[in-house]
Amino acid sequence: MSNPSLLILAGDGIGPEVMNEVKKIIGWYGDKRDLAFDVEDDLVGGAAFDAHGTPLTDATMEKAQNADAVLLGAVGGPKYDTLDFSQKPERGLLRLRKEMDLFSNLRPAQCFDALADFSSLKRDVVAGLDIMIVRELTSGVYFGEPRGIHKEGNERVGVNTQRYTESEIARVARSAFELARRRNNKVCSMEKANVMESGVLWRQVVTEIHEAEYADVELSHMYADAGAMQLCRWPKQFDVIVTDNLFGDLLSDAAAMLTGSLGMLPSASLGAPMANGRPKALYEPVHGSAPDIAGQGKANPIACILSFAMALRYSFDQAAEAERLEKAVEKVLADGKRTADLLGPEGGTPISTAEMGDAIVEALDASL
Amino acid sequence: MSNPSLLILAGDGIGPEVMNEVKKIIGWYGDKRDLAFDVEDDLVGGAAFDAHGTPLTDATMEKAQNADAVLLGAVGGPKYDTLDFSQKPERGLLRLRKEMDLFSNLRPAQCFDALADFSSLKRDVVAGLDIMIVRELTSGVYFGEPRGIHKEGNERVGVNTQRYTESEIARVARSAFELARRRNNKVCSMEKANVMESGVLWRQVVTEIHEAEYADVELSHMYADAGAMQLCRWPKQFDVIVTDNLFGDLLSDAAAMLTGSLGMLPSASLGAPMANGRPKALYEPVHGSAPDIAGQGKANPIACILSFAMALRYSFDQAAEAERLEKAVEKVLADGKRTADLLGPEGGTPISTAEMGDAIVEALDASL
Ligand SMILES: [Mg+2]
Ligand SMILES: [Mg+2]
Repeated sequence: MSNPSLLILAGDGIGPEVMNEVKKIIGWYGDKRDLAFDVEDDLVGGAAFDAHGTPLTDATMEKAQNADAVLLGAVGGPKYDTLDFSQKPERGLLRLRKEMDLFSNLRPAQCFDALADFSSLKRDVVAGLDIMIVRELTSGVYFGEPRGIHKEGNERVGVNTQRYTESEIARVARSAFELARRRNNKVCSMEKANVMESGVLWRQVVTEIHEAEYADVELSHMYADAGAMQLCRWPKQFDVIVTDNLFGDLLSDAAAMLTGSLGMLPSASLGAPMANGRPKALYEPVHGSAPDIAGQGKANPIACILSFAMALRYSFDQAAEAERLEKAVEKVLADGKRTADLLGPEGGTPISTAEMGDAIVEALDASL
Repeated sequence: MSNPSLLILAGDGIGPEVMNEVKKIIGWYGDKRDLAFDVEDDLVGGAAFDAHGTPLTDATMEKAQNADAVLLGAVGGPKYDTLDFSQKPERGLLRLRKEMDLFSNLRPAQCFDALADFSSLKRDVVAGLDIMIVRELTSGVYFGEPRGIHKEGNERVGVNTQRYTESEIARVARSAFELARRRNNKVCSMEKANVMESGVLWRQVVTEIHEAEYADVELSHMYADAGAMQLCRWPKQFDVIVTDNLFGDLLSDAAAMLTGSLGMLPSASLGAPMANGRPKALYEPVHGSAPDIAGQGKANPIACILSFAMALRYSFDQAAEAERLEKAVEKVLADGKRTADLLGPEGGTPISTAEMGDAIVEALDASL
């Protein structure tokens, strides 16, 4: 049997630096855990534009479709701000999401004990937090037709359409229920069924899928505004939250900020199962390309490393190894190792991007 | 000159109790500040249904249209849960909002120093917070057509339409700029112009109104997901936030929860100026009718009293008197007076609804 394949698209800014540290981790799993991957590198975003005049070539798109998982660093930078809309670095990422049909966006909101003081929330509200927001990523009001700005009489009118089909809701609901079974078996579905028919359908379909296929999972429903409140009040009440594209956009970002560790958070975007049973999958840190610190060895590689941990868990069914990696990160933080972004007001001496990667590899060694 | 008129719709549950305390305050302003109001009482919600078989009679609607301001307590209760949709207590409130065309919903998020420990946020993040969220209340995706659930082939499809006209955006933008001039002169407008054309138009119109009429006010723009993050991280960066109906729904509730004083918060819903120059206006606490504690003298009247303070400021141009009332509330809290809902984990002896009203009247006396 051949090794599973990874396509690495390091991208722009700090992307290549943090991805270098991920490669150390990948190498470690091949050497020490007999978990070798066939790794291929390619370009995305500004880097692809510089080389090929497009933020994602057809050849790269083809490779992404055939890889067992795609790891992405970050895209974008001031150098590309004046490019035409269709050539902007972000279009490369959007093309990947669209053509791979990655409808289920997994956004963990986790708070490492060692970093709990970074949160604007009180320590007991946030320490040890571990929830997962599943955001529908390919439909809803950001994509629905009709859309646009037109004239009615003397007035401009702006229109967007929130539109969800039964099957679009069903597939992301299944994704959330599957996740819950691997976690604490609880799903809270959020919409505005009190004022939106698309929310009424959302609630109906989630309820139907639950009754027919996932009755063992605990399901609750909450209006999205109440959900925003409850996330701010006591986020630990949740396990998995499933919601639509727009609500998920706001709620996942709010939850991420609540952890105080925005720069530490990974994400996964999953699609339908491929012939080998693995879902189409793209893993990337939530943070951006941070062009201001690129190339200086200051970047924090943890979000990208934790994205690889998600790949271990969700693409390669290696939950125990994913946990080993997450625990290694936790240990390094508990030991007081900090990249520059993690130094609090009391200061201290930061370690470099590479030193952080090495420390995590050391912690992995120590775990054996 | 006749006195300004107030229509009081106390409603259901704790509504009548808390409104009794507001009446003490109104009486005080007539006696001690030569600010007399012509007060009329009427019914709304379940109380109106019990008396007339409808949650709002045409006669009451007519009075509301002609009053200088409407003060509302709260509507709803388990007794009315089985009523037909059109007869539910909430429909009375929705009819008022719709027929008075109250497009600008003012939701202050304030945190009293004495209550800062109730927040899930750290004390320094939230103590003394005073921001104002202006939510467009009569248009957007909760109202746009087409809407509904229909079949396409074998599938159900749920549709809602986000739709904003130039004039709908312009009038709520003006409302926010006017407010900012009475506060700290800063407006932040939030939308998703990066992915929604209705957001593009929102940003354009807000910018045009700013340049043409309010160039003296500081204006910034933020994507609504970043706005949700920033509200959680450092809410004191904002003064006035203006946003659409849906984003405002989530952001105002999240901000309210962040203060930790959800039961303390007032609101105003304003429409176009009437012949006398005053805006159509309805003032109400953010909290609900709390049927579980109704009639027991346990309710906290402060949110309703602060709603009257908003009426003083926004309907009757009595900013100094509004501030006097707010300071009186602050003093009573600083003195340690607490209704049952404000007792922390350390306990203490609660005072009754009436005792809280009396204490605030006393503090008003002391302010003279
Ligand atoms: Mg977002
Ligand atoms: Mg709401």
